[in-house]
Amino acid sequence: MKKAIGVFDSGVGGLTVVRELIRQLPCEDLVYFGDTARVPYGIKSRETVIRFSIENILFLLKQNVKLICVACNTASSFALPVVVNHFKVPIVGVITPGAREAVYATQNKRIGVIGTHGTIKSRTYENEIKQLEPSIKVTATACPLFVPFVEEGWLSGKVVMDVARHYLEPLKASGVDTVILGCTHYPLLKPVIRQVLGKKVTLIDSAKQVAMEIKKILAQDCCLAKNGKGRHKYYVSDNPEWFSSIARRFLGEAPKNVSKANSNV
Amino acid sequence: MKKAIGVFDSGVGGLTVVRELIRQLPCEDLVYFGDTARVPYGIKSRETVIRFSIENILFLLKQNVKLICVACNTASSFALPVVVNHFKVPIVGVITPGAREAVYATQNKRIGVIGTHGTIKSRTYENEIKQLEPSIKVTATACPLFVPFVEEGWLSGKVVMDVARHYLEPLKASGVDTVILGCTHYPLLKPVIRQVLGKKVTLIDSAKQVAMEIKKILAQDCCLAKNGKGRHKYYVSDNPEWFSSIARRFLGEAPKNVSKANSNV
Repeated sequence: MKKAIGVFDSGVGGLTVVRELIRQLPCEDLVYFGDTARVPYGIKSRETVIRFSIENILFLLKQNVKLICVACNTASSFALPVVVNHFKVPIVGVITPGAREAVYATQNKRIGVIGTHGTIKSRTYENEIKQLEPSIKVTATACPLFVPFVEEGWLSGKVVMDVARHYLEPLKASGVDTVILGCTHYPLLKPVIRQVLGKKVTLIDSAKQVAMEIKKILAQDCCLAKNGKGRHKYYVSDNPEWFSSIARRFLGEAPKNVSKANSNV
Repeated sequence: MKKAIGVFDSGVGGLTVVRELIRQLPCEDLVYFGDTARVPYGIKSRETVIRFSIENILFLLKQNVKLICVACNTASSFALPVVVNHFKVPIVGVITPGAREAVYATQNKRIGVIGTHGTIKSRTYENEIKQLEPSIKVTATACPLFVPFVEEGWLSGKVVMDVARHYLEPLKASGVDTVILGCTHYPLLKPVIRQVLGKKVTLIDSAKQVAMEIKKILAQDCCLAKNGKGRHKYYVSDNPEWFSSIARRFLGEAPKNVSKANSNV
């Protein structure tokens, strides 16, 4: 039986990664789990995010997956270092690929990172970047209102612009030439962020790199699906109708095959 | 042994009710549960909010309480009608007292209701008001960004004012003279809401009426505590430090005796 790639996120944001996976790996089956009953993760503690992540991983393992992608920056920051060596299947987060791309992109060795309270507090991006290139200066700042803005569909306009200007001020002040969008919701605010930071700043959205990393691992393990069209199955722990309606923004198309399931039972 | 009053909320907002309970019932012991691991409830489905609420009620019953207050508008809207007859202890929500006060206050028979997506979608306030006085015209609107604003401490300023103007436009247009703050976070935004709606509009914060209702029920059941100073114990399912730091805004003082506990185990 063909095994799928499992992807989990706190809610809907991880679909930006799914979109890229479908683009780069069109033959692969995908199983997505969005923890919409307990969303958001970004304001919750390390301990709780680890507990939720392990429950989500166990749920995906029951769906017969060959690899798991943690498509949530907060879960990748807090849980990945704890879980990565515990399971037989490879587990891929979104931090390392994003950090690597940013280190490659920066010319002036000044990188900005934006994310949730949890992601920024964990300093995971900073540590990953420093490991690759200790001389790089990292400026990290939390943008907690960006997630509710995206979920409410406020993707442009005066209010969002004012908040973006407020949040991104420290990045402008420190002269970064590269900024990591360290939350899967943020790519939807790219036009606003670009307008505030200017065209010369490179915005790094880790989805592309994450999908490339997953392709590489599957190829190494000789389990890349090479034929046929992949099937995609979506599970959410709450509000499948709401998920379906908002998912198009992230996925570029309406998801089919959405069901409700809890990971903590 | 002296029995306590149990109070639960999705997070920190229910402390506005606790504050009023302490004011009106200083001799009573209180046990608070804030479900900070699964906050917010306002964006979640009826089914999920009912499940969470029942878990929270069972947790409070283990703490030996004589009455339970559902100090969350979303949980009161969705879960109260389902649970109110299942348990031996009285269960009091925040909707009926708020609706009653608003019906009393309005002169022109036009009442506005603001709340989360869940509360507004449930139409519980509207139904309660119509039951008391069918001729009243109710205008209800969701203000989903108000909760993240309050939790992030954005209680004033241009951005919050712009969002409030946007949300409250339908209430202004329909000429309401009374507005129910149908979410326990909203009393913290009273100055902003007042500035947008004008001084002539009465803002109803149900905390005072809820505490009066609880006092009445306990007196009827002859179990009012009349001596000594009440003890107050706070449980949260995540982030006790964050809870303690933000709680002062709602409670008027820093809470002592905060512990972590899960209601779903």
